[in-house]
Amino acid sequence: MALRDAAQRGESTRGAAAYVTLEPCSHHGRTPPCCDALIEAGVAKVVVATGDPNPKVAGRGLDRLRAAGIQVELVPSESEAALASRDLNIGFFSRMIRGTPWVRMKAAMSLDGVTALGNGVSQWITGEAARADGHAWRARACAVLTGIGTVLEDDPMLDVRQVPTPRQPHLVVVDSKLETPPTARLFQAPAQGLARRIFIYCAASDTSRQTALEQLGATVIPLPGPGGKVDLAAMLRDLATREVNELHLEAGHKLNGSFIREGLVDEFLLYVAPQMLGVGGAALASWGPLQSLDQRLPLRFASVEPVGEDLRILARVQGRDRFLHA
Amino acid sequence: MALRDAAQRGESTRGAAAYVTLEPCSHHGRTPPCCDALIEAGVAKVVVATGDPNPKVAGRGLDRLRAAGIQVELVPSESEAALASRDLNIGFFSRMIRGTPWVRMKAAMSLDGVTALGNGVSQWITGEAARADGHAWRARACAVLTGIGTVLEDDPMLDVRQVPTPRQPHLVVVDSKLETPPTARLFQAPAQGLARRIFIYCAASDTSRQTALEQLGATVIPLPGPGGKVDLAAMLRDLATREVNELHLEAGHKLNGSFIREGLVDEFLLYVAPQMLGVGGAALASWGPLQSLDQRLPLRFASVEPVGEDLRILARVQGRDRFLHA
Repeated sequence: MALRDAAQRGESTRGAAAYVTLEPCSHHGRTPPCCDALIEAGVAKVVVATGDPNPKVAGRGLDRLRAAGIQVELVPSESEAALASRDLNIGFFSRMIRGTPWVRMKAAMSLDGVTALGNGVSQWITGEAARADGHAWRARACAVLTGIGTVLEDDPMLDVRQVPTPRQPHLVVVDSKLETPPTARLFQAPAQGLARRIFIYCAASDTSRQTALEQLGATVIPLPGPGGKVDLAAMLRDLATREVNELHLEAGHKLNGSFIREGLVDEFLLYVAPQMLGVGGAALASWGPLQSLDQRLPLRFASVEPVGEDLRILARVQGRDRFLHA
Repeated sequence: MALRDAAQRGESTRGAAAYVTLEPCSHHGRTPPCCDALIEAGVAKVVVATGDPNPKVAGRGLDRLRAAGIQVELVPSESEAALASRDLNIGFFSRMIRGTPWVRMKAAMSLDGVTALGNGVSQWITGEAARADGHAWRARACAVLTGIGTVLEDDPMLDVRQVPTPRQPHLVVVDSKLETPPTARLFQAPAQGLARRIFIYCAASDTSRQTALEQLGATVIPLPGPGGKVDLAAMLRDLATREVNELHLEAGHKLNGSFIREGLVDEFLLYVAPQMLGVGGAALASWGPLQSLDQRLPLRFASVEPVGEDLRILARVQGRDRFLHA
């Protein structure tokens, strides 16, 4: 795209130096090999921020460039540029290195940590700017995940609406007993972007329900775990095989609690509204109670930014991104 | 102090312009009149950011300067400089205009809003930098307030230790049944600063307990309200008569809940630690449950700053600072 853009602006790339965040690929994937494009463009030098962990590439891209007489410079692996480049593409590195997507739990809550009143009311705790920003993060993800509780209570679309997107993230539903109603709004076609796929993970198989959901275009995947629940860890591995890099969780406090309890959350994306809602409401995630502070889930604030009247806090679970230092 | 500092540096203030945040006083309070000092220093001009709401001053300071031939410029009342100057001195303006201190509720909590585990463990949710910063805010206040629950459970000193201070804020205990033990650590002399006063507000009078506490130097003030509780609103008015400008609340979730329920909190000073503690712990404040989002306590984020690994959020209750626009 960058080379095409240069050509369209009438700029020659012959003899140029190209700076790339990731080792250019040498194989045909969804797009033709980037190496070929760079060679054809006649660049003299390619500075690569980080090697590709994809075994289909892994150094072959660099070799191919060198074989074509291009000077190749690979930035030191632990340099700031290399780490920032891998962070930019964190879901891809997670999938390639860990075999699971990068799991980001999104929620909107009051400053005292309440995500919904006791009677279920939660629209709208945060403001419009925060909701639009949340859609931008949905758009960035490969898939949005929710639970059957949210489907039955809120009947959400969970598509990207408030920002433009060329494609919709896929939708994943954790639905142990296959209770997703065929009339659920999530089966409606989003108003923009390419069609999305719907993956419904269940624990108990029910042929007639499964058939009904599959007729609506969903893929039903039985992955039973203990206690009649979906095996969430196995589900993440399965999603990785389906090329899901970043997984955006928008679920209720029960499923959120299961993800935290099983140590599957990598990062929190929280929109904090300037308000107090008191006691008796729903928490972000039902897990605990803890007996000691040693049992806490330790985080690191990655970014804190105002979004409209609200605050967006991105907090990463400590140690979860250590694969970036591979 | 500024004039003295200039003199000590060998700088002449004769013919100078002085910029002051508050109208210089013309009366003898704890210090001699500032007007006299400015006149003696020979300044030619005084730019005053905001007039003094104190009826003992209220324009007389400006008059006195003018009478001495000094050019006086009063910044427009709603200008940014005027508002910022009043904000800097918010407790003083609150007491002078509203007749109550500016009430700041301080708490340390996890990102999911938990201030203590279900078993009471709360030391230490936040880090050392946040604790030192909290002591700086204590030092800035005229008085620190807590409840009998905290006294009995944690037996805290509630003095300023982690930062240097020339004086200690007074200590206020809300103790409806006069249960403060004469052995409580709060009666110990702080290690630095001037001696502080201890005010114990109660609802039920008990002469022998009152005498025992008074013998330890405390002032016991019966202010009964409904339900055998201290009348908190009356207490705030009483504290204002005792020249308490800024009141720093460090109480448990019950007393915090009472303050919020009665609409007596002006501002929250929250140290948010990068961690999740799950359900079953103590909330910031026990009030609610709400039936509708209209009942929420609406805030405005005044500042959000990293303090060590933690986040310090200063959030003001909407409309509570409207007296600054007097």
